[in-house]
Amino acid sequence: MKSLSGRMTSMGRQCTKCDNESIIYQKYSGMHLCKKHFVEDVERKIKLTIRKHYNINRNETIAIALSGGKDSTVLLYILNKIFGDRPDINLVAITIDEGISGYRLDTIQKSKELTDNLGIKHVIRSFADEYGMTLDELTQKQRSYGACSYCGVFRKKLLNKTAKEEGATRLAIGHNLDDEAQTILLNHLKGDISRLVRLDPPKKIEGLTLRIKPLRSIPEKEVALYAIVNELPMDFSECPYAHEAIRGEVRDMLNEFESKHPGTKHSLLSGFQKLLPILAKEYPPEENKLNECSVCGDLCTGSLCQACKLLGYE
Amino acid sequence: MKSLSGRMTSMGRQCTKCDNESIIYQKYSGMHLCKKHFVEDVERKIKLTIRKHYNINRNETIAIALSGGKDSTVLLYILNKIFGDRPDINLVAITIDEGISGYRLDTIQKSKELTDNLGIKHVIRSFADEYGMTLDELTQKQRSYGACSYCGVFRKKLLNKTAKEEGATRLAIGHNLDDEAQTILLNHLKGDISRLVRLDPPKKIEGLTLRIKPLRSIPEKEVALYAIVNELPMDFSECPYAHEAIRGEVRDMLNEFESKHPGTKHSLLSGFQKLLPILAKEYPPEENKLNECSVCGDLCTGSLCQACKLLGYE
Repeated sequence: MKSLSGRMTSMGRQCTKCDNESIIYQKYSGMHLCKKHFVEDVERKIKLTIRKHYNINRNETIAIALSGGKDSTVLLYILNKIFGDRPDINLVAITIDEGISGYRLDTIQKSKELTDNLGIKHVIRSFADEYGMTLDELTQKQRSYGACSYCGVFRKKLLNKTAKEEGATRLAIGHNLDDEAQTILLNHLKGDISRLVRLDPPKKIEGLTLRIKPLRSIPEKEVALYAIVNELPMDFSECPYAHEAIRGEVRDMLNEFESKHPGTKHSLLSGFQKLLPILAKEYPPEENKLNECSVCGDLCTGSLCQACKLLGYE
Repeated sequence: MKSLSGRMTSMGRQCTKCDNESIIYQKYSGMHLCKKHFVEDVERKIKLTIRKHYNINRNETIAIALSGGKDSTVLLYILNKIFGDRPDINLVAITIDEGISGYRLDTIQKSKELTDNLGIKHVIRSFADEYGMTLDELTQKQRSYGACSYCGVFRKKLLNKTAKEEGATRLAIGHNLDDEAQTILLNHLKGDISRLVRLDPPKKIEGLTLRIKPLRSIPEKEVALYAIVNELPMDFSECPYAHEAIRGEVRDMLNEFESKHPGTKHSLLSGFQKLLPILAKEYPPEENKLNECSVCGDLCTGSLCQACKLLGYE
């Protein structure tokens, strides 16, 4: 924790809101915050995001995509803090075991520890059971695309299916501010306006569980610090498959710009929020015109879903 | 020319379209082009921009903002090539002498050389005559903002006024692809959607000469190469006042990204073009709700125009 909060250059300073020692300096807000006020700040912003963007009603079931990494761990912990005492709201954690040797078993272990501690139902589903092979095996056999392409499509499909089976009305994903700002910037750089709209479809689509991203206004560093100060069980290891190279470049670019112009990630997101309702009228999310996949019956835009295409069906 | 085309790594290669030696490699198109085909390519794209975005009618007068730098020099040269023989289209070059010692006189000399060569009417107006002081004097007296803020506002005002006096129906500005892509990216990073729309107001506004940017699809390097291969008289010196620091950062960031992902500047612009008509409906350019400035009578959004505000009127 020392090195992380040290990087945020607030060690030894007093909290802007009380007499306690600060553990973080938020350059974008100009505030030094102690542990108590930092935790309050994060939770207040997440509650605000939920209230402003996601209208959670009575008798909802929220499925949480739980990988065991810092983002989804914090997400589950906070959603339990907000909704855990509500008898009419049901939480269920879903972990997907893609079958990545030397990596996924550790994170599953951590995620189990968390759901056991919190007393939350935990459903674990695997690529092996669902698709007949692990991601490791799949990428050995199919080499047309990178591992991340297969993993993304198949994980999303299995998450959606499991959420539906659990009767979920929402599927919560742990994307933080950095993830969102990177995706927005990347789509601007690519000039891909329709994908920008699909990033946050504003309407519920029949047959699909509505995705929500309660951490979208919290910078990645603060998600990590929140996890550390709350001593949440989690795994910090990285997936052995290389991530999209272009996203790494956008991340570095954005981090450098943010450090010189604090608040840039926030303003990228807020610009996107202004664009979204206007664009959504002209670019209806493609999920609005869905058909059933001719192989597996899942909803998709063409006659075959992306997963069945990747599996080689024609 | 050698070093410039050398940087574009095409020396000694054959033109994609003929047997001649290539002088440029366009990474974004994958083409090697000889001098003849490069010049054709630039001119074809500029004609396309004019046809697609700016509907030039009969009996128009196009004023060209001519600083004497590479962009405005190429702009005037090409507009003269396209419209010079049309008896119904009138071209007039306008140069603003801001009064920047050791800089502006050289560029004015170059711009005179060009308009003399082409036989185009050339109107030179100065800050000293119009506002009673040079930019150098102004920035000595007024220190609330940087020189570029004063210069931008006063130059734009004098350009508009002179264009109107000359009966211009268009005011052509030499912004190239790099300028446009930087501004678009900067506004995305700032989340400033209304400024994004004002970058290219789609409609004519009563009392203002419509701005056009025929070079907007041509990368800066190619504008420079076009000027060199056509041996146009121009000044390569830079304005001694520092430019906006943030724009330099965006330029470097974008150049680095473009070199790894050729076509990024083009796609930023094309994304913006897709956004613009949709956004313009919801964000009418502020020029739609204009008043007359209570001091100088120019059109502005409040009761005072930006120039009169900077001059200290309340």
